[in-house]
Amino acid sequence: MSEKKMGLEARLRDSRALSLVRSAEEAAELIKDGMTVGVSGFTPSGYPKAVPLALAERAKNGEKIKIDLYTGASVGPEIDAALTEAGVIRKRLPYHTNATIRGKINEGEVEYIDMHLSQSTQYVNYGMLNKIDVAIIEGLAITENGDIIPTTAVGNAPSFIKNADKVIVEINLKKPMSLEGMADIVLLDNPPNRKPINICAPADRIGAPCMECGFDKIAAVVITDMQDKTRPLGEVDDASKRISDNIIKFFDQEVSAGRLTNSLLPLQSGVGSVANAVLYGLCDSEYENLTCYTEVVQDSMLDLLRSGKAVMASTTALSPSPAALEKFLDEVEFFRDKIILRPQEISNNPEVVRRLGVIAMNTAIEADIYGNVNSTHIMGSKMMNGIGGSGDFSRNGAITIFSTPSTAKGGKISSIVPMVSHVDHTEHEVMVLVTEQGFADLRGLSPKERAVKIIENCAHPDFKEELMSYFKRACDSSALHTPHILTEALSWHSRFLDTGSMLEE
Amino acid sequence: MSEKKMGLEARLRDSRALSLVRSAEEAAELIKDGMTVGVSGFTPSGYPKAVPLALAERAKNGEKIKIDLYTGASVGPEIDAALTEAGVIRKRLPYHTNATIRGKINEGEVEYIDMHLSQSTQYVNYGMLNKIDVAIIEGLAITENGDIIPTTAVGNAPSFIKNADKVIVEINLKKPMSLEGMADIVLLDNPPNRKPINICAPADRIGAPCMECGFDKIAAVVITDMQDKTRPLGEVDDASKRISDNIIKFFDQEVSAGRLTNSLLPLQSGVGSVANAVLYGLCDSEYENLTCYTEVVQDSMLDLLRSGKAVMASTTALSPSPAALEKFLDEVEFFRDKIILRPQEISNNPEVVRRLGVIAMNTAIEADIYGNVNSTHIMGSKMMNGIGGSGDFSRNGAITIFSTPSTAKGGKISSIVPMVSHVDHTEHEVMVLVTEQGFADLRGLSPKERAVKIIENCAHPDFKEELMSYFKRACDSSALHTPHILTEALSWHSRFLDTGSMLEE
Ligand SMILES: CC(C)(COP(=O)(O)OP(=O)(O)OC[C@H]1O[C@@H](n2cnc3c(N)ncnc32)[C@H](O)[C@@H]1OP(=O)(O)O)[C@@H](O)C(=O)NCCC(=O)NCCS
Ligand SMILES: CC(C)(COP(=O)(O)OP(=O)(O)OC[C@H]1O[C@@H](n2cnc3c(N)ncnc32)[C@H](O)[C@@H]1OP(=O)(O)O)[C@@H](O)C(=O)NCCC(=O)NCCS
Repeated sequence: MSEKKMGLEARLRDSRALSLVRSAEEAAELIKDGMTVGVSGFTPSGYPKAVPLALAERAKNGEKIKIDLYTGASVGPEIDAALTEAGVIRKRLPYHTNATIRGKINEGEVEYIDMHLSQSTQYVNYGMLNKIDVAIIEGLAITENGDIIPTTAVGNAPSFIKNADKVIVEINLKKPMSLEGMADIVLLDNPPNRKPINICAPADRIGAPCMECGFDKIAAVVITDMQDKTRPLGEVDDASKRISDNIIKFFDQEVSAGRLTNSLLPLQSGVGSVANAVLYGLCDSEYENLTCYTEVVQDSMLDLLRSGKAVMASTTALSPSPAALEKFLDEVEFFRDKIILRPQEISNNPEVVRRLGVIAMNTAIEADIYGNVNSTHIMGSKMMNGIGGSGDFSRNGAITIFSTPSTAKGGKISSIVPMVSHVDHTEHEVMVLVTEQGFADLRGLSPKERAVKIIENCAHPDFKEELMSYFKRACDSSALHTPHILTEALSWHSRFLDTGSMLEE
Repeated sequence: MSEKKMGLEARLRDSRALSLVRSAEEAAELIKDGMTVGVSGFTPSGYPKAVPLALAERAKNGEKIKIDLYTGASVGPEIDAALTEAGVIRKRLPYHTNATIRGKINEGEVEYIDMHLSQSTQYVNYGMLNKIDVAIIEGLAITENGDIIPTTAVGNAPSFIKNADKVIVEINLKKPMSLEGMADIVLLDNPPNRKPINICAPADRIGAPCMECGFDKIAAVVITDMQDKTRPLGEVDDASKRISDNIIKFFDQEVSAGRLTNSLLPLQSGVGSVANAVLYGLCDSEYENLTCYTEVVQDSMLDLLRSGKAVMASTTALSPSPAALEKFLDEVEFFRDKIILRPQEISNNPEVVRRLGVIAMNTAIEADIYGNVNSTHIMGSKMMNGIGGSGDFSRNGAITIFSTPSTAKGGKISSIVPMVSHVDHTEHEVMVLVTEQGFADLRGLSPKERAVKIIENCAHPDFKEELMSYFKRACDSSALHTPHILTEALSWHSRFLDTGSMLEE
């Protein structure tokens, strides 16, 4: 009992915070129908849980309540599943990875805005979205001044707090106080008053450990002890392993050519199992003193830091698999000077990404023979997750790599197609394309030169011949910069929608 | 005669420069078959003329010579027409606007790489393209140290000089010495040694008036007096005038909402007649103390500066129409403290564009109902000009506007289509779409909400009904994030290719 109190006093450092403690149900009453709510969290990490669950309960009990929901990136099922099932979400931005809300987006019941994550912050700060009525923020503690110390993700929380009328803080006792100090919070002024962001290396700290808020804004404090429901990562399968090997072969080529050293440049690696596997490959490589400037830290990145292969990771979120999260939380002391958690406006800022010369490694759903990449839309219409930060990094990296297994759905889909059904990353910025078959270095190649290299190095043998046939027949047309046969360009997708396979009968 | 000598001594400030003077033919001999050549120039402005013409002459006389040609952006006919006609260009990057080379690109005889202009510089500096054998640079003068003072464009010249084995300087006597001091040259280190670019307002100067070179690199100096062949600008037609009016209506809305002041934010405006007309609209508006952070200064921008409506323009090139160029050259003194010429790595740098919060205004060839923009490819395959710097600005602006007349080819083509045939600017970053019909403010809208607004506000009445029919029928499908009918999505383009019109029979 007294220990618990000591614990709470370390977390609520002023009596004003203590006096604001409410139940999740009471706090949720602050949220009314029609409001816009901003929540902390980035990847299912550092997001509020108890208040969203209480809100969902109200709707399930028959209250009519619809909100617009703004996050940093993906959040846990306590938000995207529970609130979706209860019919509470009208509009959602800027990113998600949850199957329940994905279903409703694709059924047309939730309006979803899929945004560049670095832009989502400035949309809020420039007043281009709704005014935020309530922000719900997971915190480690509330300081003497009413500022909030973030937990395992920063995301858009600092800007949501700044722009919100009222703030509800969920103090999560599952998150150890040893996390304090990992965050480096700075807010950018709006133009024309912006100054340079003074980060010249991933380790540079330029801000404060807490997010400015103040007791005037805090409307309720809720004490919780629910662990983040982070996403399990798939086993490193054979295709992922070979993709990773191919990326390392590409790095080897760059080192031989004198364009990279064996510390590479700061790494950014996307979300998901393939991205995780790619970094595992580096654990067994000869590369060392690696650094990361990225938006997510998954299991393999933690292992790189553990082994000493990597010395520093700058990110906006920690999102290891559930098992790796438990392990990490036991070892926070070890990681404290090796990880910096930044607001996503900083972690994903084109200014810093371009200055540092990040190596951007992201995953594609499909790519076409000319190097355009689709990361978001299945068959041109169905939202998978969203573009996330991939565009922030890929447009500005010194080297921009996209990888994907060469086939999907048990070989029935070719991930290399004549024309992608949606474009997230254009031929202008995709530099290297990697599948388990090999890598295609597209730098300095014209579209037609790219097509040959992509088909030869990246396509699956089952689809190579047909792709080459398309390309050759397109080259019989009269417009030969990016030869296409428009009546056939999307026919592979149509065939899949009709027959369940892109393979010809 | 003595005046001419005085003139030359002001331009060749060391005897070493004088001793390097050669004829254009002699200088051109430095260029051999298989070489990679980098030239100064951005828009047909500040590009070398005599040496390329001499090189073309050699090829016309039967010598086998093919080169890879790197520029800043578009250059004049002395390069892109003469060298193309002589069959000298094998590969060309990163941008062009010339009809002769366009023809050969689309016939498949010249390989063309269409690049983000800010990236073209770092490709060169990071060693991702060929080594530059010879750089041909138009200069105002060569300093005592062998450094080169640029004329009316900076472009990639500083980086080409840095990376070239040999440099040929064309001293152009048609360019008045009063231009000296307009340029502000700084080169960025490669990662991991890059520092912040300390520009917090368009007027900030951070560099030197000349481009570092040194006499060790200069292999020849050629004296010329050929004026830039800048491109004539079309009359401000009715559609352009109405587009301009609609953009100003949008600005008015932003000012009313408190998101902009009546000095707006630094303006970037693309190339071409529509872009020129857009800025003319501001001459008669109530906006004042305008600034520009852009890559080209056309006629209307000069008029804004003349009238005092605009106070400062930062650019990498001056490219007024031929008549406006003559006028400008007589008035350089007036413009000297109102225009800064920067390397394109700085003028187009995402770091600065995002910090300043530029209002990016570029032109589209076509846009689709979901807000994707095509600026480069006619009917998906045929290269028009290239993406140029439009992506550098549009991805990073505080506000990103694309405009286009709602129809092309006398009404036979709708510039608003179900699906664009090529994507240069994605739905994620296009914020406002403008035609002569009206503007669609897409910020905060989901794809389906965007479709309704674009069709209602921007499409031409001749195509509205058919577009709405496509959208509604697509909404009957089962994937409702971005509803499409893939077998129909590109059928408007196919119909045009078949029948010469997108209109149904
Ligand atoms: C592209 C992305 C979806 C891949 O995720 P992943 O977990 O590595 O990939 P998976 O192989 O599990 O594929 C995910 C799904 O897409 C499907 N898929 C993959 N390629 C496909 C294709 N070419 N056509 C149709 N479906 C495809 C898979 O079948 C799977 O669907 P399922 O869950 O119904 O089986 C994911 O990386 C993403 O959302 N990226 C965009 C955002 C981003 O890059 N953020 C990071 C910035 S730091
Ligand atoms: C898009 C762009 C071509 C428009 O240029 P413009 O001079 O304003 O436009 P025009 O109306 O004259 O159109 C140019 C050509 O495209 C054709 N065109 C325009 N819209 C078309 C459409 N939807 N479908 C087919 N053709 C179309 C026109 O008919 C014209 O062709 P023509 O010369 O054979 O008659 C030009 O702005 C561009 O190259 N932009 C990309 C680069 C860029 O933005 N750079 C600036 C960054 S600062």
